[in-house]
Amino acid sequence: MHTQVAIIGAGPAGLLLSHLLHLRGIGSVVLERRSRAYVEQRVRAGVLEQGTVDTLVESGVGERLLREGLPHRGIELRYGGAGHRIPFEKLVPGRTITVYGQQEVVKDLIAARLAAGGDVRFEVDDVALHDIATDRPYVTFGGLRLDCDVIAGCDGFHGVSRPSIPAGALTEFHRDYPFAWLGILARVRPSSEELIYARNERGFALHSMRTPQISRFYLQVPPDDDVAAWPDERVWAELKARLETVPGFTLATGEILEKSVTPMRSFVAEPMRHGRLFLAGDAAHIVPPTGAKGLNLAVADVRVLTRALARFFADGSTALLDGYSDACLQRVWRAQHFSWWMTTLLHTFESDDAYGGRLQTSYLDYVTSSEAAATTLAENYVGLPYEEER
Amino acid sequence: MHTQVAIIGAGPAGLLLSHLLHLRGIGSVVLERRSRAYVEQRVRAGVLEQGTVDTLVESGVGERLLREGLPHRGIELRYGGAGHRIPFEKLVPGRTITVYGQQEVVKDLIAARLAAGGDVRFEVDDVALHDIATDRPYVTFGGLRLDCDVIAGCDGFHGVSRPSIPAGALTEFHRDYPFAWLGILARVRPSSEELIYARNERGFALHSMRTPQISRFYLQVPPDDDVAAWPDERVWAELKARLETVPGFTLATGEILEKSVTPMRSFVAEPMRHGRLFLAGDAAHIVPPTGAKGLNLAVADVRVLTRALARFFADGSTALLDGYSDACLQRVWRAQHFSWWMTTLLHTFESDDAYGGRLQTSYLDYVTSSEAAATTLAENYVGLPYEEER
Repeated sequence: MHTQVAIIGAGPAGLLLSHLLHLRGIGSVVLERRSRAYVEQRVRAGVLEQGTVDTLVESGVGERLLREGLPHRGIELRYGGAGHRIPFEKLVPGRTITVYGQQEVVKDLIAARLAAGGDVRFEVDDVALHDIATDRPYVTFGGLRLDCDVIAGCDGFHGVSRPSIPAGALTEFHRDYPFAWLGILARVRPSSEELIYARNERGFALHSMRTPQISRFYLQVPPDDDVAAWPDERVWAELKARLETVPGFTLATGEILEKSVTPMRSFVAEPMRHGRLFLAGDAAHIVPPTGAKGLNLAVADVRVLTRALARFFADGSTALLDGYSDACLQRVWRAQHFSWWMTTLLHTFESDDAYGGRLQTSYLDYVTSSEAAATTLAENYVGLPYEEER
Repeated sequence: MHTQVAIIGAGPAGLLLSHLLHLRGIGSVVLERRSRAYVEQRVRAGVLEQGTVDTLVESGVGERLLREGLPHRGIELRYGGAGHRIPFEKLVPGRTITVYGQQEVVKDLIAARLAAGGDVRFEVDDVALHDIATDRPYVTFGGLRLDCDVIAGCDGFHGVSRPSIPAGALTEFHRDYPFAWLGILARVRPSSEELIYARNERGFALHSMRTPQISRFYLQVPPDDDVAAWPDERVWAELKARLETVPGFTLATGEILEKSVTPMRSFVAEPMRHGRLFLAGDAAHIVPPTGAKGLNLAVADVRVLTRALARFFADGSTALLDGYSDACLQRVWRAQHFSWWMTTLLHTFESDDAYGGRLQTSYLDYVTSSEAAATTLAENYVGLPYEEER
């Protein structure tokens, strides 16, 4: 069995890559360890940058996104007993974010690949990468062998792709945070039209949503906390304590559909390539979710990789493939910094660092009063232009 | 002996306060532990915000400042083998900084006070503050007693004023940094027209100046370093290593006039008032010098205090005096944050924090490429408008 590009992982990165390559006439096979039902229901990110929306729409998979996605023209920073809106329409005219669950993007991409006769294989066992440093790499899985010209590692932080690269060939950068996020999905109308990022002495809280009927919340919790420690009543009580801090705001409550604890981690592996293996998305880098950058970075990687592969398969030139890692890393590190910045701006750190607490308040006061500072938040949040648009 | 305002300390804060009060017909006596020659030659800050220049000029002590001060319309951030200019004229039109040594400001203010018959006493021993929580505070020094209505503590971080406040009445916020600055004054023409803030693996370096003939440099050094460890040849070698990192730049060298090690410290005491004692400038707050904010904050405090005292002596109202601390602290914390921000952006921290180093590079790339981010630096550096100008 042979394909041009073997893609490991049917998350947003792998599926979008397969789709974009197909549009350029390049064949691929997508190998996914989990079932189709699992990846189509896995609750993850839900905030799409303007560029991500444009990429999906322009490549023909944005029809439902445009119909069901919720465009947002700002976010609220809530602290010190008041809410402060960051108005995208004023600060970064023409650019917005769209709330649309990652699993919905995955559904749309799977449907598009299958409709086009794409080869997406789920519940694939024992995936292993071979000869990645040669011109003839191949992948084995479930007793089969897939020969290919290039392998795209789109299988996330815990996938097999990155560990297939020899020790010492990658430099890894990482930072851990002294807290985690408890994510909550609930069947209740959102209590606010826009996202609310709340900084609170009790810890950070985020009020978000997926649809007009489904709300999404996050609570800063200790890093080793367990979902079992968070019965529904405690979740609602804590969300109210952290969000009902401004006059007139009442949090609507409802049935909790899902709870999970997400570690907060910053991670980058460089370079994002070894021989004929190219890493994209979470396989190469992780950001804490505060800035909503993970999915969007994966899309940016895939755009760069698609162009590089198109050039390679057109005339054999490796020029763009050779530049892939550097081309991605500039944006990756910008997003790393922004995600760290949003995280440190809004979370509670050691309670005995009174100086740090005052700095945080001063920074929030500045971000919500200086147009320049608010613009730095807004332009990163909606997504800086892609390299080729500058 | 009686005066309306007993002012402790003849630095920029105390002298400017005495001068501004005089212009409003309010009497004061300034008590200074050091000699006149000492305070007129003490090398300290040298970058005046637009508002500081305006304050000095409008109060009639800016004649020599306007003649000899060096207006700068930008600074350079130098890192990664390139220089990046932050152009104030484009980002914050109409606002600049002026390079003019703190000791020159002190000379001008002493001359003005003495010309107006002001009472400024140098080499005063054994200053002690009494009954500050009452309406009749007084100061003793050298066997004399000075009765007054109000005491202004303008005697810096190590002065007697702040320790005169009872334990528990102040909340102190502080942060230390794992490095100090070696300050160097040299008789050599500046090698660049504008200030150069250089981030370097060897540590931070700042190229500054005082006059067209006198350069001022700073080197990041270990916190416990001694001047004895820095013979002149080593100073020049290190300055060259950290500053000669862009093509075509050569550092001019000359006679070194002075070297000293300055600790890097962030500190705020709240409130900036106890009874009839009002703290201003370094007596209440310290910033690391990276953002050039210390002297400028002192001037801002003194402006607020002058207005409050004028109201008090005009009609007995304590409304503005009661609001003094809060009115100052908003600006103080903005400057605290900016100074911390500039410091962390440009200094070398633990060499094993590779992630932190990349974040720093990403932030510098952002500040030097995004107009919004560059504006946040520029508007803080030239000084945000005073509260009453907003």
